[in-house]
Amino acid sequence: MPKRALIIANGEPPKKQHLCELIREAGFIICADGGANTALKFGVTPNAIVGDLDSIHAEALVKFHHVPTFEDRDDETTDLEKCIRWAIQSKYDHLTVVGATGRRLDHTVGNLGVLAKFYPDAVVRFVDDLGELCYVGRGLVFDSEKGNVVSLIPLNRCEGVTTHGLKYALEGEMLQLGAREGTSNVVISSPVRITVKKGDLVVFKLFE
Amino acid sequence: MPKRALIIANGEPPKKQHLCELIREAGFIICADGGANTALKFGVTPNAIVGDLDSIHAEALVKFHHVPTFEDRDDETTDLEKCIRWAIQSKYDHLTVVGATGRRLDHTVGNLGVLAKFYPDAVVRFVDDLGELCYVGRGLVFDSEKGNVVSLIPLNRCEGVTTHGLKYALEGEMLQLGAREGTSNVVISSPVRITVKKGDLVVFKLFE
Repeated sequence: MPKRALIIANGEPPKKQHLCELIREAGFIICADGGANTALKFGVTPNAIVGDLDSIHAEALVKFHHVPTFEDRDDETTDLEKCIRWAIQSKYDHLTVVGATGRRLDHTVGNLGVLAKFYPDAVVRFVDDLGELCYVGRGLVFDSEKGNVVSLIPLNRCEGVTTHGLKYALEGEMLQLGAREGTSNVVISSPVRITVKKGDLVVFKLFE
Repeated sequence: MPKRALIIANGEPPKKQHLCELIREAGFIICADGGANTALKFGVTPNAIVGDLDSIHAEALVKFHHVPTFEDRDDETTDLEKCIRWAIQSKYDHLTVVGATGRRLDHTVGNLGVLAKFYPDAVVRFVDDLGELCYVGRGLVFDSEKGNVVSLIPLNRCEGVTTHGLKYALEGEMLQLGAREGTSNVVISSPVRITVKKGDLVVFKLFE
C-alpha cells in the first residue's frame, strides 16, 4: 500500500479548492518551512513542519505551536529536500508537492532535480494549477484522456526514449534541453507508456 | 556595436514599469505570436510580429494591422524560437526576452534550452520581475553588488565549472540537475567570473 503525504513548499500555492482536494487525497500534511505560512493563509493545519525554519512567520509559529516541528540546519539541502528526507524516514513513499514551482525561476528549476534525486525511495510529483510533473524513471505508464497535452522534459541527456500512445511518437530517441525537447505532445491512446534507457526524464501532464 | 531587440513572448509579462524600462533599453520590439496580446494590453506597439499566429487575438491583429507580420508555420519550433531566428536574420544579436517563463512549467523549462541553442549567434537573456537568466557559454563576466544572489543552473552535465567572486566558490567542479546544483550563491566581490569547460550552464541573477 502506498503511504501518501502532501508537502506544502514555499513557492506559489494552487487555488484553495485544488489544494483541499490534494489534502483529502493525501491525508497527511507536511509543511516545508515557509510552506506553513501558506497553510495558515488557507486555514489548513499541518501534521508536521520541517526545515531550517528561517522562512516561517512568527504568526504561523504561534498558531502551529502544537504541530511537531523538526528543525534541520543542513546547509547543503533545500527545505523541500529536508522535508522529503523526513517523509521517507517516516515511511511516506508517495509524495505530492505543491508550491515547488512558480516563483523564483532558479528554485523552480533547482527543484526539478529533486524528482530524480529521491527516486525510487519516494515517488514524488509536483502539482500546480496548470498541471503535474512526474519522474519517469526507467518507465512510466499512466491513463489519460485522448487529446490531453503531455510534455517530456529531459533533466540531462536522455537516451533510448520510447513512447506509446502519444501523437509524436519517439522510438529509442535522444532528448536533451537545448538540443531536442519533447514539449506539447498529445495523447492519442491510453494508457500512455514511456520508457527510457538512460538519463533522467520528467513528464508534465497539462490539466484540461 | 550590439544591436538590441526586445522579444515579448506569450508567458507571464513583467510589471508595466519594468517592461517600459526594457523597451527603452532595447528600442526595437518583436512580439512572438500571442505576445502581441500582451503588447496590446500594455499599450505598446511592436515593430514586428513573428510566429505561427495561432495565439494572437483578433483584437490585436486589427489594432496592429500596420505592423509587419511574419507568419512561420514550422512545426518543429516554438514561436519564441521563430522569433529569435527572425531577429538573428534581421541582424539583432542582443535579445532580451520577457514572457518566456512563469506560466506553463513545460514551456518555461523548454525555453531554457533556447538560451543555449542560439548562442553565439545571439546573446539571449530572459527577464522577469524577480530576476534575469543568461547563458554562460564557456565564460561570463558581469558586475554585481556584494550580497546579490546568483544561481547556477546546469541544463546538462557541466564539467570544469569555476567561479570567482561567489561565496560558495567552485573550482573545476561538476554541476548537473538532480545531482549537484548551484542554487542561491552570493556575490562577495565584483566582477563575478564564471567559466565552464563542457556543458550548458545558465546563470540566474536575482534582482534586489
